[in-house]
Amino acid sequence: MMSYVEIDPSDYHVLHPRPAYLIVSMDKNGRLNVMAASWVMPVSEEPPRHVVSVYREQKTYENIVETGEFTINIIGPEHAETAWKAGTLSGKKVDKWKLLGLQPLPSKKIKVPGIMGAYGVVECRVDKRIPVGECDLIICEPMRTIVRGDLYQRYGWDLRKAQILMHQRGRVFVTPGKLIILPKRKT
Amino acid sequence: MMSYVEIDPSDYHVLHPRPAYLIVSMDKNGRLNVMAASWVMPVSEEPPRHVVSVYREQKTYENIVETGEFTINIIGPEHAETAWKAGTLSGKKVDKWKLLGLQPLPSKKIKVPGIMGAYGVVECRVDKRIPVGECDLIICEPMRTIVRGDLYQRYGWDLRKAQILMHQRGRVFVTPGKLIILPKRKT
Repeated sequence: MMSYVEIDPSDYHVLHPRPAYLIVSMDKNGRLNVMAASWVMPVSEEPPRHVVSVYREQKTYENIVETGEFTINIIGPEHAETAWKAGTLSGKKVDKWKLLGLQPLPSKKIKVPGIMGAYGVVECRVDKRIPVGECDLIICEPMRTIVRGDLYQRYGWDLRKAQILMHQRGRVFVTPGKLIILPKRKT
Repeated sequence: MMSYVEIDPSDYHVLHPRPAYLIVSMDKNGRLNVMAASWVMPVSEEPPRHVVSVYREQKTYENIVETGEFTINIIGPEHAETAWKAGTLSGKKVDKWKLLGLQPLPSKKIKVPGIMGAYGVVECRVDKRIPVGECDLIICEPMRTIVRGDLYQRYGWDLRKAQILMHQRGRVFVTPGKLIILPKRKT
């Protein structure tokens, strides 16, 4: 029951499931692209910084290097199909934005828009890029963050309503399930 | 219904929930410490690299700088109380390892052990440290990864059995809920 087996250390699925986001970027001619990413996290609170790992061969990488901006779009189960396609089609070969029928949600601090219908959008400006293996860690400053008012509470998503989409593997996604609320500690 | 509100860009909860892990580290005298972390993700597959954001004031940070090693322990709801205490008590003030009654699961590639009863353990060696705001991004090489054989399938955790613990905010944790399995794409 409690016996362990060794797996390939390159099997990153051991750190999944994790939130699946849509990353919107724009080339210097204003053409939009979208990709799916779950290798995204906060890094620092003061000053605020988030980080996204982006494969250097991707169109999104080219765009981010060109314009220094992108949006992180937090999504739900209704966007799972979009996330899957955005994550498997190449922005170098097809116009994913058009193909997926996405509508822009205008940003205020940067030129790159969010996606209309997303649960939340973080407008990001690149701070620095750190090459790590086949990817770059893109460290960014969140310039402006918006959330759907009906889904967010003072301290985060209302998980009874906001079914934040998470990626498990391939075509398998999952949403948050049972909340575990610990009692206040006495010590 | 679909109206958006602006929140403080330093509110990192917009990128939660995300997996909650226990990070085990050791000082040069062999004294173990444990902290909770959800700012952890894969960065690169080839070569494999993971990254953890660690606050520079933490005991774990001191230990990682001293020994260059740590383990990432993947846990479930039965470890939520431990995660909460590991995340709120200071390793500079109390012996959290002892206080929490943790038992070591010996590592093979590094000296720092995992935690007996964890769903999985990644033995990590530090590759580099990148200062970002109040934290350092600790980029590490996963030297060896073990998982509970009854909980892991070929492509990741069996979420019908492995209720991977995720952190929402404060004392609120959540586990994965409903799986969304997309049909195979025809295109």
